[in-house]
Amino acid sequence: MKAYLTRRYKFSASHRLHSDSMSDEENRSVYGKCNNPHGHGHNYTLEVTVAGQVEQKTGMICNLVDLDSFVQKNVVQHFDHENLNVLADFSATVPTTENLCIEVYNILEEGFHHASVEKVRMEETMLNSFEYAGGRELRT
Amino acid sequence: MKAYLTRRYKFSASHRLHSDSMSDEENRSVYGKCNNPHGHGHNYTLEVTVAGQVEQKTGMICNLVDLDSFVQKNVVQHFDHENLNVLADFSATVPTTENLCIEVYNILEEGFHHASVEKVRMEETMLNSFEYAGGRELRT
Amino acid sequence: MKAYLTRRYKFSASHRLHSDSMSDEENRSVYGKCNNPHGHGHNYTLEVTVAGQVEQKTGMICNLVDLDSFVQKNVVQHFDHENLNVLADFSATVPTTENLCIEVYNILEEGFHHASVEKVRMEETMLNSFEYAGGRELRT
Amino acid sequence: MKAYLTRRYKFSASHRLHSDSMSDEENRSVYGKCNNPHGHGHNYTLEVTVAGQVEQKTGMICNLVDLDSFVQKNVVQHFDHENLNVLADFSATVPTTENLCIEVYNILEEGFHHASVEKVRMEETMLNSFEYAGGRELRT
Amino acid sequence: MKAYLTRRYKFSASHRLHSDSMSDEENRSVYGKCNNPHGHGHNYTLEVTVAGQVEQKTGMICNLVDLDSFVQKNVVQHFDHENLNVLADFSATVPTTENLCIEVYNILEEGFHHASVEKVRMEETMLNSFEYAGGRELRT
Amino acid sequence: MKAYLTRRYKFSASHRLHSDSMSDEENRSVYGKCNNPHGHGHNYTLEVTVAGQVEQKTGMICNLVDLDSFVQKNVVQHFDHENLNVLADFSATVPTTENLCIEVYNILEEGFHHASVEKVRMEETMLNSFEYAGGRELRT
Repeated sequence: MKAYLTRRYKFSASHRLHSDSMSDEENRSVYGKCNNPHGHGHNYTLEVTVAGQVEQKTGMICNLVDLDSFVQKNVVQHFDHENLNVLADFSATVPTTENLCIEVYNILEEGFHHASVEKVRMEETMLNSFEYAGGRELRT
Repeated sequence: MKAYLTRRYKFSASHRLHSDSMSDEENRSVYGKCNNPHGHGHNYTLEVTVAGQVEQKTGMICNLVDLDSFVQKNVVQHFDHENLNVLADFSATVPTTENLCIEVYNILEEGFHHASVEKVRMEETMLNSFEYAGGRELRT
Repeated sequence: MKAYLTRRYKFSASHRLHSDSMSDEENRSVYGKCNNPHGHGHNYTLEVTVAGQVEQKTGMICNLVDLDSFVQKNVVQHFDHENLNVLADFSATVPTTENLCIEVYNILEEGFHHASVEKVRMEETMLNSFEYAGGRELRT
Repeated sequence: MKAYLTRRYKFSASHRLHSDSMSDEENRSVYGKCNNPHGHGHNYTLEVTVAGQVEQKTGMICNLVDLDSFVQKNVVQHFDHENLNVLADFSATVPTTENLCIEVYNILEEGFHHASVEKVRMEETMLNSFEYAGGRELRT
Repeated sequence: MKAYLTRRYKFSASHRLHSDSMSDEENRSVYGKCNNPHGHGHNYTLEVTVAGQVEQKTGMICNLVDLDSFVQKNVVQHFDHENLNVLADFSATVPTTENLCIEVYNILEEGFHHASVEKVRMEETMLNSFEYAGGRELRT
Repeated sequence: MKAYLTRRYKFSASHRLHSDSMSDEENRSVYGKCNNPHGHGHNYTLEVTVAGQVEQKTGMICNLVDLDSFVQKNVVQHFDHENLNVLADFSATVPTTENLCIEVYNILEEGFHHASVEKVRMEETMLNSFEYAGGRELRT
């Protein structure tokens, strides 16, 4: 009776795509206008999928109150209304949405223990989204 | 040439989260305002995924007419505009959306034979959804 | 036979809400985390409404090609992937979405003459939107 | 420089459509399955539109913090996860979404004074919505 | 206590934009690939807005059953899965979405008498929509 | 660190469901009004999922510019505003959305080499969608 719960959160942040391991010209060529020095921003939609047995007594995989309080405290409040480039999370990597997605997965994987963390999906715009499942195969 | 078809349905119902195996105080602590004695309601969005070979003659996995008539008759008309707590389906379980999702999967698994039933996804609100695939691993 | 055409565009930008006519403390109090010094960003959804007679010959209010090329050139390319605070448009005003909406309306009102510009609606997030119609009453 | 701000809120509630001034048979005929004695429920989407001058100093019509705290306290917390039929608001009227919309408008009109309350829109399902503007003509 | 009800319907149809009063070259220049001889198609979303007093006894502007049965019979079944170019409705006009919108408004205005027909909105794609209110000013 | 990128595209086309290997009566019975001789149309939403390692230097799975230019040239421009029935792609198969989905997957699988092509999802209407992953099991 393993079932899956997906919960959606939203936050807004800005970023500039620029890699210190590439020349300015290479940066402009790879990132185009996302390399604009003043940065730009997005409303990110985050979807967290956790899984587990549906408990007979409560009828729940895990209590949403626990998931919400963890994600609000450790993810949403951490990234919302921030410039991703200045956060320690991205001191060694470029704050692309791929890397943001991996970062959020790792925060959940390490700290949330009320159900199994299965996947993080991060929507950058209505046209783009990224998924990460700890490197596991998704077949999705 | 196995392909997947997902079809979306909508219905509205009310429920109250209350477990007979817990004290009133425990119920209030676990379910919060979802334990409110008068109940509350949702517009549920149901997504049914079936799979199969795409038939050469018709170009179809299965005829949508067959899927729609089965789901309308056995699921939508059964749950729409009902109070889930008073239905026989939930005489032994709490009518959480997790359990509603499992219930719908079982109805389809037992009665629909025009294609393989793969997954049921039930959206409780724009922020919450649940998936069940007969207990199989989803990697989704 | 006056009819209305609404066309939707999308762009991403960053901004920081900070008013030079207020103290730092007043800024923090009025704008909260939107006053964060590093700025943050949004995916803006812009809706432009124009109106006119439906021309008998073409069946159109105006040619979408004309509206799209004007808006792409004068609005989307101008604001997309920019930091609003450093643009000349906001040298004298705070780059709130209210002011961004008025700015876009004025660009259209002055430069687009294929149909009457009726209203500009700017969606900052799925939860917030602003409308401006040249100061006219909307009763909407 | 009058501009408009629309803010979206969500809550879930249940109701049963039944009018004491009609016979049981008439109730069933008018309301169909919405007259089901056990009630059913919806996820309501509420949109509040307020208007005013965009203040030069702040670039805002009114502070969203003020609007949000008023609506959360007086509307969302009041109706969320409730059965509308047992609330005092509907002691003399049927809790249709039309009447819920008027009720919310009146709460805002009487108590919110940071900007002019223009319109309340209440979405019952993705297919139905209602608008009320204090009885004024909308031409919308 | 005048309130507004908006109801959404969906249908799919194909059309080719071609005006007999223009040369082939002019048609290609005005309509671009919409003039493609084999036609193309859309999922249209239709929104019908009607208005009236909220009746004290029922709490309703008009019964949705009446609106739905009229629109299904006279609009949806009439246009769904059709090629608009071969319908009598468009024997004298080009089947643009502007004209389709006006056509639907006129069908409602002439035949639906349970509430006042206020506006028809027709969404051609997620990016385009058209509104018609009998030629009245919308200020929307 | 394998991650997944999903990108959304839109195009409009018309089709008529009719199989040469069935009699006219059988066609009408299987396809219903989709067999209407004049055809009808849809706004298709295409979602392409590709996967790969997130490159340390760029923080990207693959450059969206490469994916977009491939899909625009080989898929969107190929199908947009066309009648699917007259295209060579459907000379031997019925242009159902199942087959359209498989066709697009094959175009990507053969020609796009900047990341691994994982899945194609094709949304025919808001209620229907199809997925194909080269015949692999999706467990989705």
